[in-house]
Amino acid sequence: MLEDRIRRPSLLERITTPQAAASLIEDGMIIGMSGFTRAGDAKAVPIAMAERAKTDPFKITLLTGASLGHDIDRMLTEAHVLARRMPFQTDATLRAAINRGEVMFVDQHLSETVEHLRSNQLGPIDYAIIEAAAIREDGGIIPSTSIGNSASFAILAKKIIVEINLAQTLDLEGLHDIYIPTKRPTREAIPVVACDTHAGVPYIPVDPDKIAAIVITDEQDSFSTIEPADADTQAIADHLIAFFENEVKLGRLDLTLDPLQAGIGTIANSVLAGLATGPFHHLRMYSEVLQDSTFDLFDAGKLTFASGSSITLSSACANRVYRNFAHYKDRLILRPQEISNHPEVIRRLGVIGINTALEADIYGNINSTHVNGTHMMNGIGGSGDFARNAYISIFVTKSLAKGGRISSIVPMVAHVDHTEHDVDIIVTENGLADLRELAPRERAVEVIRNCAHPSFRDDLMDYFERACARGGHTPHLLEEALSWHIRSRDTGTMKAEGGKDQPKVRLA
Amino acid sequence: MLEDRIRRPSLLERITTPQAAASLIEDGMIIGMSGFTRAGDAKAVPIAMAERAKTDPFKITLLTGASLGHDIDRMLTEAHVLARRMPFQTDATLRAAINRGEVMFVDQHLSETVEHLRSNQLGPIDYAIIEAAAIREDGGIIPSTSIGNSASFAILAKKIIVEINLAQTLDLEGLHDIYIPTKRPTREAIPVVACDTHAGVPYIPVDPDKIAAIVITDEQDSFSTIEPADADTQAIADHLIAFFENEVKLGRLDLTLDPLQAGIGTIANSVLAGLATGPFHHLRMYSEVLQDSTFDLFDAGKLTFASGSSITLSSACANRVYRNFAHYKDRLILRPQEISNHPEVIRRLGVIGINTALEADIYGNINSTHVNGTHMMNGIGGSGDFARNAYISIFVTKSLAKGGRISSIVPMVAHVDHTEHDVDIIVTENGLADLRELAPRERAVEVIRNCAHPSFRDDLMDYFERACARGGHTPHLLEEALSWHIRSRDTGTMKAEGGKDQPKVRLA
Repeated sequence: MLEDRIRRPSLLERITTPQAAASLIEDGMIIGMSGFTRAGDAKAVPIAMAERAKTDPFKITLLTGASLGHDIDRMLTEAHVLARRMPFQTDATLRAAINRGEVMFVDQHLSETVEHLRSNQLGPIDYAIIEAAAIREDGGIIPSTSIGNSASFAILAKKIIVEINLAQTLDLEGLHDIYIPTKRPTREAIPVVACDTHAGVPYIPVDPDKIAAIVITDEQDSFSTIEPADADTQAIADHLIAFFENEVKLGRLDLTLDPLQAGIGTIANSVLAGLATGPFHHLRMYSEVLQDSTFDLFDAGKLTFASGSSITLSSACANRVYRNFAHYKDRLILRPQEISNHPEVIRRLGVIGINTALEADIYGNINSTHVNGTHMMNGIGGSGDFARNAYISIFVTKSLAKGGRISSIVPMVAHVDHTEHDVDIIVTENGLADLRELAPRERAVEVIRNCAHPSFRDDLMDYFERACARGGHTPHLLEEALSWHIRSRDTGTMKAEGGKDQPKVRLA
Repeated sequence: MLEDRIRRPSLLERITTPQAAASLIEDGMIIGMSGFTRAGDAKAVPIAMAERAKTDPFKITLLTGASLGHDIDRMLTEAHVLARRMPFQTDATLRAAINRGEVMFVDQHLSETVEHLRSNQLGPIDYAIIEAAAIREDGGIIPSTSIGNSASFAILAKKIIVEINLAQTLDLEGLHDIYIPTKRPTREAIPVVACDTHAGVPYIPVDPDKIAAIVITDEQDSFSTIEPADADTQAIADHLIAFFENEVKLGRLDLTLDPLQAGIGTIANSVLAGLATGPFHHLRMYSEVLQDSTFDLFDAGKLTFASGSSITLSSACANRVYRNFAHYKDRLILRPQEISNHPEVIRRLGVIGINTALEADIYGNINSTHVNGTHMMNGIGGSGDFARNAYISIFVTKSLAKGGRISSIVPMVAHVDHTEHDVDIIVTENGLADLRELAPRERAVEVIRNCAHPSFRDDLMDYFERACARGGHTPHLLEEALSWHIRSRDTGTMKAEGGKDQPKVRLA
């Protein structure tokens, strides 16, 4: 059986245990690991690394595509293996270590990490640890349910450890399109001109001599943890559908829309799934992670093609999809995240980007990452790649958090990930603010009226009006601008309760 | 003589006065005007428009490439002609009106404005008013010293007014490369793969019937107002040269460097000119505005080719260059600003981007536009197009302003134009902070130690250390984060003088 999965006979003798493979990793190494939004992560070697570190401490710089499943970031954090981590993560234990300053986290645009490696600003990668469905006779690696940064990690690494996962169907072969941009400054144009362009080869071409170890695993990807749509996410979807319908009426879009991107998570997934009920048809996706909503839209007959860098599904959806993968495969491509998120391609295709905000301010600046301006949640991920280059850049969020104590619309965001230049549309369950071609003072009125929750709307308008009285292109009361966050930090709510919750203030 | 300049005989009868041309403009129209960093602006019709408005009030939305010369924005502002203005400006009178909220200013990435026009999110343009060196027999417009947005304005406008400027040498013919991206979502790759790629035609192709009026002018461009290098700008240049030399030593660059971009203004110009004294050779530029430094580098034998969207020179340099333009012409291309600033091309070429910051914070976020977080200076211009997509994104600033009362390095910028994700290097006269692949806590130490002025360094380190004690990925003391700006606003200095300058604070 293994000959199906390891088709180069001489590589069969490199099969070893996770423990033996983990022992190759030395203190101070830079490791590039597969895994993007829990999909296609290496599953055995990193856990063996965490185990080993309990008695044989060592530290590494860990690069991945994006987030990992199987609590791997938790285990590596608890074993104190992570000195540095980039470019994205979503693990609660790692997040706490990052916020304590114990792990140096480098939060990067997902399209950029391998550019840094290729130009020797970062690296070199000592070991790439890559999950694969199979290894070809020529040594080419066939990835599993994600590509992420795996291709460039493997190509640029000194050595490679492959995890062959028997639980990943061999039907995945042919799903991947590995195209690597040529070297600057003589780089050629990236030949991707449509969602379904095949530009490269369906495997990662590597020198088989670099494959130092092969580990056999048999475990499914961690399932996604998205919540089902609720009344608020349905309302957000409805506002967006009405917006798209109006754009069609104005002749700016047709009913096939433009290629769609949706960020990871419950809200964006619900919004995308909501398109199944609209009048739209022959939709295409040019996105990074393909979630349940992609397959819901396929099954609803609404979607013709989807390009991404990973497939991350709930348990129920995974059972449905992988049992009958051939039914979907010719309508899917997975690409390296450098290509799925490349500014060149996103701008060329005119992608409609839908990403989730942690909070937005009245002028439309977006905080995607930092709770109360200081504490990292996950990372910027691909949101900047898409928001900057999209034809229409949309951010979605519920208007309230923490049972209504926190407003997602604030006077000034306490951390900026996306400036107002890159934000066209903001949608909450209350409504949609169309900020295109508006000046900041006009944007504020749209955001406050349409997006803010009624329980915070008057306070926001009061702030804005008092700020305007002082003047400026982007009026602010600097001494109040972050007061909502200070109050939230100190009292757990942004609401001022008759003055008794006033935060303590000190000026240096 | 005019037959040299207007080569389609039937167009000679469209020659008219600036006043007659200005009378075509109606209240509420959207006008697209040539002009980029004072170069190639329409010079007679807008002044006639301002004159007319004194007795016949009307308001327009004015789009340009970037800034205009000849006090045109001042005159149009004083005549209350401007309802809306985009995407950039540098005029003191207009700036004041913007900050009073009288003119709605839409501050845009310079590469993006025409995308919005092309997709009907903005527009349509009623009249394009374009300065030209000549009109070809087929009606094609040969621009003068800038292209900016002129090509797409003229192509998309309902009608065109051309100003033929006899003071612009006919030697400019052949300098321009007009390439317009094809329509999305079936857009092709932009075929610019090197600084010297010719991708289009040397004129703006338009239907000659759209040319409603032609006005003859004979006036030079406004000269640039950059200051000569001083000790601080020389120190910044020296730090950058040392950095480049070290990158060469590390094998990341060779002595030809990568294509260079430098933002408008004194500091970036001085830094670029400083490269004439280093060991570098066969340099290339892929920039937006070509300033004196471009021609200094040509004359020093250091530069082989320069691509931009405009040529903006001091009086002395203009005399030198235009007297002998044929000597430079085959080493120069002017492109539409959409192409000079296009993410696709900048990322492909691996441009080294050098832009000026108004202020930077300890984590490397950059404010390029808003004085004290509220009052617009000029606009983001092309800095975002370059900083996001550059191979190395560099920001330069003097560490002090206002005679030492203001620090350009602050705890938290009061407005964010470029997030830390897009900022690799910050340079002041004190030193250079290399922030690549560093986490925020590491970035802060680099910025404070290397870039901050000694008179503010201890206060910044004190802030940072107290913030770290509270925790977070990006530690801040929210209640102090903007206190330097508040103090500056209220007392004119960021320095705390024994407590007596404490700003008044109020929390809503």
